Amino acid sequence: MALPRSKRAEAVAKTRPPELRLPAGMRDHAPAAAAARLKAIDTLMRAFQQAGFERVLTPAFEYEEVLALGLGAAARAATVRFVEPSSGQVVALRPDITPQIARLIATRYRDVKGAVRLCYEGTVVRLDTAARRQRELSQAGVELAGLAGPEGDAEVIALGVQALTAVGLSRVTVDLSHLGLARDLLRGMDLPPQAQDQVRRLMAKRDRQGLERALQELKVSYVVKKCALEMLQLSGPPSVLKAARERLPKSAHGAIAELVDIVAAVSRRGLAADLHVDLGEVRGFDYYTGVRFQAFVRGAPDAVLRGGRYDDLLGRYGRPSPAVGFAIDVEAVAGALDASSPSTKNNQR
Amino acid sequence: MALPRSKRAEAVAKTRPPELRLPAGMRDHAPAAAAARLKAIDTLMRAFQQAGFERVLTPAFEYEEVLALGLGAAARAATVRFVEPSSGQVVALRPDITPQIARLIATRYRDVKGAVRLCYEGTVVRLDTAARRQRELSQAGVELAGLAGPEGDAEVIALGVQALTAVGLSRVTVDLSHLGLARDLLRGMDLPPQAQDQVRRLMAKRDRQGLERALQELKVSYVVKKCALEMLQLSGPPSVLKAARERLPKSAHGAIAELVDIVAAVSRRGLAADLHVDLGEVRGFDYYTGVRFQAFVRGAPDAVLRGGRYDDLLGRYGRPSPAVGFAIDVEAVAGALDASSPSTKNNQR
Repeated sequence: MALPRSKRAEAVAKTRPPELRLPAGMRDHAPAAAAARLKAIDTLMRAFQQAGFERVLTPAFEYEEVLALGLGAAARAATVRFVEPSSGQVVALRPDITPQIARLIATRYRDVKGAVRLCYEGTVVRLDTAARRQRELSQAGVELAGLAGPEGDAEVIALGVQALTAVGLSRVTVDLSHLGLARDLLRGMDLPPQAQDQVRRLMAKRDRQGLERALQELKVSYVVKKCALEMLQLSGPPSVLKAARERLPKSAHGAIAELVDIVAAVSRRGLAADLHVDLGEVRGFDYYTGVRFQAFVRGAPDAVLRGGRYDDLLGRYGRPSPAVGFAIDVEAVAGALDASSPSTKNNQR
Repeated sequence: MALPRSKRAEAVAKTRPPELRLPAGMRDHAPAAAAARLKAIDTLMRAFQQAGFERVLTPAFEYEEVLALGLGAAARAATVRFVEPSSGQVVALRPDITPQIARLIATRYRDVKGAVRLCYEGTVVRLDTAARRQRELSQAGVELAGLAGPEGDAEVIALGVQALTAVGLSRVTVDLSHLGLARDLLRGMDLPPQAQDQVRRLMAKRDRQGLERALQELKVSYVVKKCALEMLQLSGPPSVLKAARERLPKSAHGAIAELVDIVAAVSRRGLAADLHVDLGEVRGFDYYTGVRFQAFVRGAPDAVLRGGRYDDLLGRYGRPSPAVGFAIDVEAVAGALDASSPSTKNNQR
């Protein structure tokens, strides 16, 4: 006896296997794509290790409260959490490996004197709440703990450029900014937290008009307002630091001098990269404490490397120490290599 | 004013950072331990790729219903699941990479004729409900789809031995069993599902007395009972297959002949491994359809490699095809290497 139509549909639905789709932002890499990524990872890790950074492995998830210690507000919001079945505690898939390295240094390297140089590669998962999806990314990075000041910054920046060049990327540009500047500026405004956030957001968006209006309404002093608007303009070759020294108040001179020293130290290493200074870059405010840098290459629309100095990160794990590091987005590197080498196009399954 | 004692304790509890511990079964690998694992992975993957297996990458989690298609009951029970924040659907951290490879073959290789040879390395997460903890493991494995019969089995077994030898492990022993035997045997008993499970459990535990009692109570025919008890005894060098042919009924001769062919095909490849046949090994019943093999090495208490033939796995993903493969437990390999090389002992951070 034939089933009535609705019953039939139900029976089919029950026996039909589920659609073989992946959660948003998750993907397979078939052989050609996998090989490109693995080769890039191999080259990057080799560059890091040859420079004296030892490779470590960290787990895919951790207790959220431990991981969150080392995350900025944005990364905390982007964390995929779930309840660990065995303990009932909240665990989080790592959205970033840096806090894990900080935890590792704070525990296993607690009594080590002097600089600690570690590197890593692994996948992280980030939630993009706006897009209602997460992304699984492979990150390859380094952390240098225990070395303060421009020499440490320059060592890490130079290593990043060298690693990107080793992978075969060309026209590397490094953008430098300094979160200490924005920090001092906001402190000078003496605003309640909400207004601070507003100002930071407008600066991050480079919304000059909106910023001017907001600072007017918040009755920020003329000097500080002028300084904030100047910062948005101070973008260009390293010579822009000279103009910055002239146009920004004395309180900014320490950070500017640091950037001058970093530029000099990086230049001494004779890198195949253009340096660019952008004092209006204030993103990463809740994470970085000093210099912040991003590397761009031909063929990638966004930065392929992001890093900076976070001198208070290790302290949050109970072992205060200066630290600087970066992470390279392996997917972005693979994309850039693919875009800049026409011969490999259409070569992927 | 000093706080009263209880208030003070409370204030301390609020400001004290969380203990820097990891969820049960999660761990860091400091440089020496990480290097050992990464070197083993590199050697294994090189061996697989030189043998013509192409490396692919698959995501850390998937929709549970898709992943579960390719998991046996034990692996399904060992899966860590959570609700995907963006979709509200249940996703699962992969406890095994084989179902992902099956999905990949069923989709991206849907129209490929002939054999498909893929390999992978990645971390999996398994829940041990009894121990109330999960484990994160690194697995390196291969899958050979589209090649039925002993030649495919022997190719994969030989590759496993070769890869373990390349890593530096010695005294490799391969245990062979055949799930078709247990399947036929249970079919011959004609028991309700619960009784089948009981018999399977007793056989898996090698509980000869318990099995005899249960089969008595279940009124299983004398011939079938004798066959079940015989199977538990049929363990030893490949010559045991001759005894098996004499002592087991005709219905078992097909599986025995397959094992004879596999032993011959493996032996022709001149491997540095001892073969061992164990017809009483019935674990993995809900997953494997034919030969099942495990490799043991000096220095590791458990199998470091597990695999077998699962000819109905790809069909569950809508692309029926014979398939055979294995996964190597990288942690177990690292442990065995460490145990068998005294010079590296105490050398890890």
